[in-house]
Amino acid sequence: MTNKTATKQLKSTSSAYVAKDLRTDLDHRLARIEGHLRAVRQMLSEGESCDDLMTQLAAVRAATTQTIVKLFEGHMESCVKTCVQTGKGQDALVGLKGALSTLLRQV
Amino acid sequence: MTNKTATKQLKSTSSAYVAKDLRTDLDHRLARIEGHLRAVRQMLSEGESCDDLMTQLAAVRAATTQTIVKLFEGHMESCVKTCVQTGKGQDALVGLKGALSTLLRQV
Repeated sequence: MTNKTATKQLKSTSSAYVAKDLRTDLDHRLARIEGHLRAVRQMLSEGESCDDLMTQLAAVRAATTQTIVKLFEGHMESCVKTCVQTGKGQDALVGLKGALSTLLRQV
Repeated sequence: MTNKTATKQLKSTSSAYVAKDLRTDLDHRLARIEGHLRAVRQMLSEGESCDDLMTQLAAVRAATTQTIVKLFEGHMESCVKTCVQTGKGQDALVGLKGALSTLLRQV
């Protein structure tokens, strides 16, 4: 039995990488956020109400947070898991600590 | 003595709008965030580490929050202030409540 949906070896310094499906999902999410930002700029140029602009920017921020959560989950399930299994857990945790410290400081 | 840097009358349903300088500043901020997102998508396609991707997305989220803060401050200083001065404070507060409820729910 093969498992072709496992991790990818790419530019990442870790020994594993998030699955292709997740990378596609993340890219689509980021593209949607980009489009959303363009729409907000259009709203601003047309003088839409500040309340509406704030609501839309809150949605942009929420979508960014959701993307980070998805990336984090995928990272834990592939990269970190593989690192731990191959005795490189310490390295994975150091990288994770740096990224999560930045993230959590900016709630 | 004239005050030409005051508020603008635009599509907004409120009787005032954020000053042109601030609108330009907000647009530049949003354009930078768009560019940042494009760069993150590039990083993802090149297989950069998840830790780096998370750090960059945290920066995108922080920049979005800062843009919301700027918009909020401008809105309070022009639109809400003018509404209160012209006896439309109640309307301004209803709109503000809606936008801020959405925003604060998503911390």
